[in-house]
Amino acid sequence: MKYEFAARMGKVPRSFIREILKVTEDPEIISFAGGLPNPESFPYHDIKEVAVQVLEESGAQALQYSTTEGYYPLREWVSNRYQSKGVKVDPEEVLVTNGSQQGLDLVGKIFLNQEDPVLVERPTYLAALQSFGLYEPVFYSVPLEEDGVDVNRLEEALHEFDPKLFYAVPNFQNPTGISYSLKRRKEVARVLTGSNTVFVEDNPYGEIRFMGEDYPPVKAFLEESVLLGSFSKIVSPGIRLGWITAPAEVMDKLVTAKQASDLHSSLLSQMIVHRYLSEYPVEAHLEKIRSMYKSQRDLMVSLIQEEFPDDVQCTEPEGGMFLWVTLPEGMSSLELFEMALKEQVAFVPGQAFYAEEPQYNTLRMNFSNSSAEKIETGIKRLARSIRELEK
Amino acid sequence: MKYEFAARMGKVPRSFIREILKVTEDPEIISFAGGLPNPESFPYHDIKEVAVQVLEESGAQALQYSTTEGYYPLREWVSNRYQSKGVKVDPEEVLVTNGSQQGLDLVGKIFLNQEDPVLVERPTYLAALQSFGLYEPVFYSVPLEEDGVDVNRLEEALHEFDPKLFYAVPNFQNPTGISYSLKRRKEVARVLTGSNTVFVEDNPYGEIRFMGEDYPPVKAFLEESVLLGSFSKIVSPGIRLGWITAPAEVMDKLVTAKQASDLHSSLLSQMIVHRYLSEYPVEAHLEKIRSMYKSQRDLMVSLIQEEFPDDVQCTEPEGGMFLWVTLPEGMSSLELFEMALKEQVAFVPGQAFYAEEPQYNTLRMNFSNSSAEKIETGIKRLARSIRELEK
Repeated sequence: MKYEFAARMGKVPRSFIREILKVTEDPEIISFAGGLPNPESFPYHDIKEVAVQVLEESGAQALQYSTTEGYYPLREWVSNRYQSKGVKVDPEEVLVTNGSQQGLDLVGKIFLNQEDPVLVERPTYLAALQSFGLYEPVFYSVPLEEDGVDVNRLEEALHEFDPKLFYAVPNFQNPTGISYSLKRRKEVARVLTGSNTVFVEDNPYGEIRFMGEDYPPVKAFLEESVLLGSFSKIVSPGIRLGWITAPAEVMDKLVTAKQASDLHSSLLSQMIVHRYLSEYPVEAHLEKIRSMYKSQRDLMVSLIQEEFPDDVQCTEPEGGMFLWVTLPEGMSSLELFEMALKEQVAFVPGQAFYAEEPQYNTLRMNFSNSSAEKIETGIKRLARSIRELEK
Repeated sequence: MKYEFAARMGKVPRSFIREILKVTEDPEIISFAGGLPNPESFPYHDIKEVAVQVLEESGAQALQYSTTEGYYPLREWVSNRYQSKGVKVDPEEVLVTNGSQQGLDLVGKIFLNQEDPVLVERPTYLAALQSFGLYEPVFYSVPLEEDGVDVNRLEEALHEFDPKLFYAVPNFQNPTGISYSLKRRKEVARVLTGSNTVFVEDNPYGEIRFMGEDYPPVKAFLEESVLLGSFSKIVSPGIRLGWITAPAEVMDKLVTAKQASDLHSSLLSQMIVHRYLSEYPVEAHLEKIRSMYKSQRDLMVSLIQEEFPDDVQCTEPEGGMFLWVTLPEGMSSLELFEMALKEQVAFVPGQAFYAEEPQYNTLRMNFSNSSAEKIETGIKRLARSIRELEK
């Protein structure tokens, strides 16, 4: 039969990154393309102990249907964690989701009508474009500067487009690694206060700050915003748990949408993650991840500075898993990708991360999932390809 | 601030059942309202063993990001299970979801434009109305008869409304417990063949047939249809895993939608469920569930026949977890609900299960999650309330 799909499906290509990742699955290739946490950081031994305890003590409960909102003690853990960072979020304002990706889908579902204007950073997180994209909004973007979004341009865009949402990743953004300074956080809160635009703050990497000062989320200065979090980088991405916090009125709609989407997130997984976070030395675990990622990031940054031509720029992230490279004006990262692939090294061409008018001379590099040896070899090969392309 | 939600949110009330379940949370109340499997059937001891094995042998893999389509060996298990029932489904045609509820959401997402006509059974599964409802279709319904949907009316509806989807639950339907005879299955396939309507076959209870002959799904006679399944009733609902099978062209869109919705389902959970299904005596486990539910169903049916007035009808399901009661014409099950609550017994008033023109003298009873003693006491109390209301 001839299937007729919904109009929305015509607007969302399958993830460019996923297609690229397929190319780079070959184990011979040194890939900086993925966005994977380092599996050496996974606490699977502790998770195993905890799983046994949960199933022995509460097996029948853990395997039964549960509430849409999520496991209350886990919601309390999130609430307490925010409290410790100076953000007031009640456990009732926390909805447990399947990673923060599902939070994005739910936000799109409850807020977006066709053609609604949505503001994003330039560049922005590709998967947010995909999630929101399925609700058929019109995207506009505001440039990122070294210490956060350009606030003047943000203010202009708010007036010009009256967007329904402004989506941003203020900590170690994917793809750029850029973080907002405290001043920018406050300014963003100030210009959004009193507007009709809901601020959607995505913070999957917040706990992975390995240098510089830690700042509270923008929500600390803008209570009515929506804030997404994830256990993917704290515990495990494969377990697919995250959360979304929002004021009661928004929470009510999110719960309705979550219920229709999949009833609730796995209770077994929620109980395992909660017990792990409550009873194991999570701070020490996070310190281990931070120090691992810092040394990978330090090595990659210093090699780029040494090996790449002087007219290539790169960000110097204070946390997270990515950095952003800007090639000389006019050089195409897609061409570079093809050349680099011959040298068996891969990255993600930057064009995928733009809501509009992509900048073709950019690329995203992941440093969290490569050994020192691979970083060294990979960056040298990439430097060779860039010089080749410059000829 | 004043939040402006998407228009779709105005069309979907929060689940009536969930609201009712809240009322019936009081442990003093004998509740036939829920839709919970019997936790005595959960293999949590085996799941614990399996979780330990998975985390010991493949911990780093199980906790890492994975493919959107799902864990291949689990997709193969589903494929083989169908093969054994005479249905040809390739592993590549299986997408792992968070319960079959997510399958419904994804089907709505990829197929439904606003105002698209969707055909459902009368009555139908409430959560399907909610999932699809968020994509703003127009619902039409076709009556269920004792052995399946009224095929003449189905044929008429296909001509009259040219629906995008026809959604049905041919095995032990929620809410009625009705199953399609083999003849009806073939007739449904026949009238749908060559139409523009995609058949969406939901089969969460198929493995829980405790009497009568087992028939293949309608998909066995209609390859181009979409078929949803669930591990909720085979292994555990709280673990939130199910699947959806569809031809390659549809699968491709489903994968795109799943990716945007939550990237993938928990790999740890998928590996646990796969290992349990492969290495433990699942047939014996299913037999245990079937025999447990059969004795609960037998008791409830015979007590209803003995205790309820003669002009009250009830279905006699051959599987699943629910039966359907029809009160005398003119009697309201909502009024009965309020009276029964005073007697501390609860059920779900049937009106929630209609896409249009609800029949107010119907109600849904769950038999899988009450002890013999509770069934006996509960049905006697309910009989008293019905007689009271008849006065």
